[in-house]
Amino acid sequence: MDSINNLLNLDTINQQIREMEYAVRGPIPIRATQLAQELKSGVQKPFEEVIRANIGDCHAMDQKPITFFRQVLSGVLSPDKYLSNSEIPEDVKQRISLLLTELGGKSVGAYSDASGVEIIRRHVAEYIEERDGIASDWQSIVLTTGASEGAKAMLSFMNSGSSDGIPTGVMVPIPQYPLYSATICELSMHLIPYYLDEDNEWALSIDELQRSLNESKANCKPKAIVVINPGNPTGSVLTRNNIEDIIKFAKQNNLLIIADEVYQHNIWKSGAKFYSFKKVMHELNVKLELVSMMSASKGFMGECGLRGGYLEICNFDPQVKAVFFKMLSARLCSSILGQIAMDCVVKPPVKGSPSYDIFIKEKQEILDSLQKRAKLVADTFNSIPGIVSNPVAGAMYAFPKIELPEKLIKMAEEKQQKPDFFYAMTLLERTGICVVPGSGFGQIPGTYHFRTTILPQTDKMEKMMNKFKEFHLKFLDEFN
Amino acid sequence: MDSINNLLNLDTINQQIREMEYAVRGPIPIRATQLAQELKSGVQKPFEEVIRANIGDCHAMDQKPITFFRQVLSGVLSPDKYLSNSEIPEDVKQRISLLLTELGGKSVGAYSDASGVEIIRRHVAEYIEERDGIASDWQSIVLTTGASEGAKAMLSFMNSGSSDGIPTGVMVPIPQYPLYSATICELSMHLIPYYLDEDNEWALSIDELQRSLNESKANCKPKAIVVINPGNPTGSVLTRNNIEDIIKFAKQNNLLIIADEVYQHNIWKSGAKFYSFKKVMHELNVKLELVSMMSASKGFMGECGLRGGYLEICNFDPQVKAVFFKMLSARLCSSILGQIAMDCVVKPPVKGSPSYDIFIKEKQEILDSLQKRAKLVADTFNSIPGIVSNPVAGAMYAFPKIELPEKLIKMAEEKQQKPDFFYAMTLLERTGICVVPGSGFGQIPGTYHFRTTILPQTDKMEKMMNKFKEFHLKFLDEFN
Repeated sequence: MDSINNLLNLDTINQQIREMEYAVRGPIPIRATQLAQELKSGVQKPFEEVIRANIGDCHAMDQKPITFFRQVLSGVLSPDKYLSNSEIPEDVKQRISLLLTELGGKSVGAYSDASGVEIIRRHVAEYIEERDGIASDWQSIVLTTGASEGAKAMLSFMNSGSSDGIPTGVMVPIPQYPLYSATICELSMHLIPYYLDEDNEWALSIDELQRSLNESKANCKPKAIVVINPGNPTGSVLTRNNIEDIIKFAKQNNLLIIADEVYQHNIWKSGAKFYSFKKVMHELNVKLELVSMMSASKGFMGECGLRGGYLEICNFDPQVKAVFFKMLSARLCSSILGQIAMDCVVKPPVKGSPSYDIFIKEKQEILDSLQKRAKLVADTFNSIPGIVSNPVAGAMYAFPKIELPEKLIKMAEEKQQKPDFFYAMTLLERTGICVVPGSGFGQIPGTYHFRTTILPQTDKMEKMMNKFKEFHLKFLDEFN
Repeated sequence: MDSINNLLNLDTINQQIREMEYAVRGPIPIRATQLAQELKSGVQKPFEEVIRANIGDCHAMDQKPITFFRQVLSGVLSPDKYLSNSEIPEDVKQRISLLLTELGGKSVGAYSDASGVEIIRRHVAEYIEERDGIASDWQSIVLTTGASEGAKAMLSFMNSGSSDGIPTGVMVPIPQYPLYSATICELSMHLIPYYLDEDNEWALSIDELQRSLNESKANCKPKAIVVINPGNPTGSVLTRNNIEDIIKFAKQNNLLIIADEVYQHNIWKSGAKFYSFKKVMHELNVKLELVSMMSASKGFMGECGLRGGYLEICNFDPQVKAVFFKMLSARLCSSILGQIAMDCVVKPPVKGSPSYDIFIKEKQEILDSLQKRAKLVADTFNSIPGIVSNPVAGAMYAFPKIELPEKLIKMAEEKQQKPDFFYAMTLLERTGICVVPGSGFGQIPGTYHFRTTILPQTDKMEKMMNKFKEFHLKFLDEFN
């Protein structure tokens, strides 16, 4: 047999990709998968199951799908069966028929336009209009493969580094969802980190934004600011005032706003409210280029596996928008079923229709339960000495701060591990609980955190929190 | 109202994206959409319908879905309904149950691993083993959003231009499927064009490969060769001998092979056969890094809208493979329903199972009909003076050469259009037939072509070919 002289080795592949990190699926979740397999094959462990609190994957944590969504999705795949079935509610049948009429060959097997199926884009625009009370142009809506694809496409689109000779800078919150750092790294762009204010429920401080921007200017051409609201990994919800200040800052500094608003349905804290950047911008009479992302993966539906999402593009130059659409055309289109999942999100059953009551019941039960878990998680962490958590005001995460003893930090360094990585890995090995260390999202140097989801169902969540508390006290005791 | 000072204009966006072209969805298809809308709103045209022969979109051209596929897909979305329904065949129920067991929370709404659902990756490996008679490792299979995502990810992965200081070169056939040129442009890589031999049914000439490679070396570091077999846009099928020569060439020149094999089920010419690069490489006792792409969008199923595909990676360094998987993790996973469509492709009903007969009947009818249309298209073109077509040996396309009168070429130049673009646009405006000019795929300078699919159903195809012939004779007459 011929021997192989590998053309691709660690030094000859794309070095940006070699460097990039994505902790939500990094070494700790990979180890969690191994542990689950070992348990399955009968290996004894100090725990009976692996609890995956590392990723916002609702259905994997036994959240049930919304009946209306699944009926519509099943139905567009097998319309003959569904449309003639007397058990299927009329509004489901109507939606199936409406959608099929708008698809090539009346089939979900046909491609759509690169930007998505027209009627679904129109429904998205109507949803935004109703949410914000201001106009939305359906021709500025792009249906994407989850929200991730939209964010990635937009970052690539604005990346003029190779012709400018200076990297394109993007302001990114720290802590952040690592999609941003991974994509910016892959695209050889420049990440401009700004720290969120942990003492102020993770709000954005304008002084900090200005400091961060000023310091970046020697290294890049700043072009955009990413804001994640409700916050991932922070579980925060921005106040209207804070959003106003951010918009004014972006306007003064000529920055495009990338608003990651995928958790807009996930608001838990009493008094907190979701305001879209678009709405606040409009009410401030400011005009700025703005991109907003939404997803079918979060909210109350949690249909992550269907990969539905959208992007709304505001105030773009029409010629520039045309080039963006051209760029998208090379990947043909996003999944039609993902698009249809998005359609169900933005156009759920209306009051009086046959599916309405069950839809509202299912939706409310999920949201109520998540709200309870949000409180349970923050309260439990705050009851543990050495752990401090902000309220989980929104999204699906807590991001508590942990105080780690000097001895522990030293031992981690000896193992060439980050201290919070060492903490999270030990937590996993001893309890089966999988969380992501703060270093995977970024944090102020010398501080340590972890991110946990609030997604395990209530009984499992209670068990998990008890085990967590027990672990933490015992583990830290070993170093004190 | 605040005025806008656009940050993004044509000069400040990514210039690579500004430059890139994707003709399959370029100006002519965009005009086709406008014409269809005008017809719909009652505007008089010299034709009654727009025939979209520009894109390999089977269902949009009224190809019917395969029942087994749709039952499985509907069923995984609504398992309660399907598993208790006595009308659903047992093998469908078994597949639904098997797949659900392997999904997070037994739901298609959960994310899978970045590389896909394990059981589906195993099924893909079994399919490849059966196809080639040699081993396939399921851990080298990645489930992707159509084949396009896999190709794009792999090109980005091997792009070391920014650290090398020299662009990474990729050999690409001319004519080619413009996904490759678009991606190479977007990633600032270097396209090394090699011409296919039209006089030899679009085979690859090793002399031409060598010429092309030699000439490129001043401008780039050549790293890979893309081969599309069966050919898009050429409708060719490579002989085994030709594949052997290509593999030897790649070995001698230290090139990774990217084998776009998405049309492996679409073989029409008597005596032609699909040989995978993997199989031929194995039988030659050659070891080379190889990537093979497959899709749920083509073949007999044509489920383009579901966005299912896979990538098989052979002979990669394990560390390098791990980095590739890490890269994929930032986009979470491809659509679970797209993955399940791929599962149905690689593991269709087996002989003796309740769904077998109807599956075989549906599959065979589609393939037989496509085979007839392949012949009809090539024969009709060859009956038209000034048009010469190779046999449509495979895939879903004809790529005939047209002889254009000097006067026509001159008039096109006056309009600042490429002559074949002018030809195809006039065809569209006069007949409603939408094809893509050869310049969108590349061709030897001074020659002119267009690509048409063979996808309109037989009666429409016959009508289309008659109209085409009539148009061509009349149009060319105007210039003679």
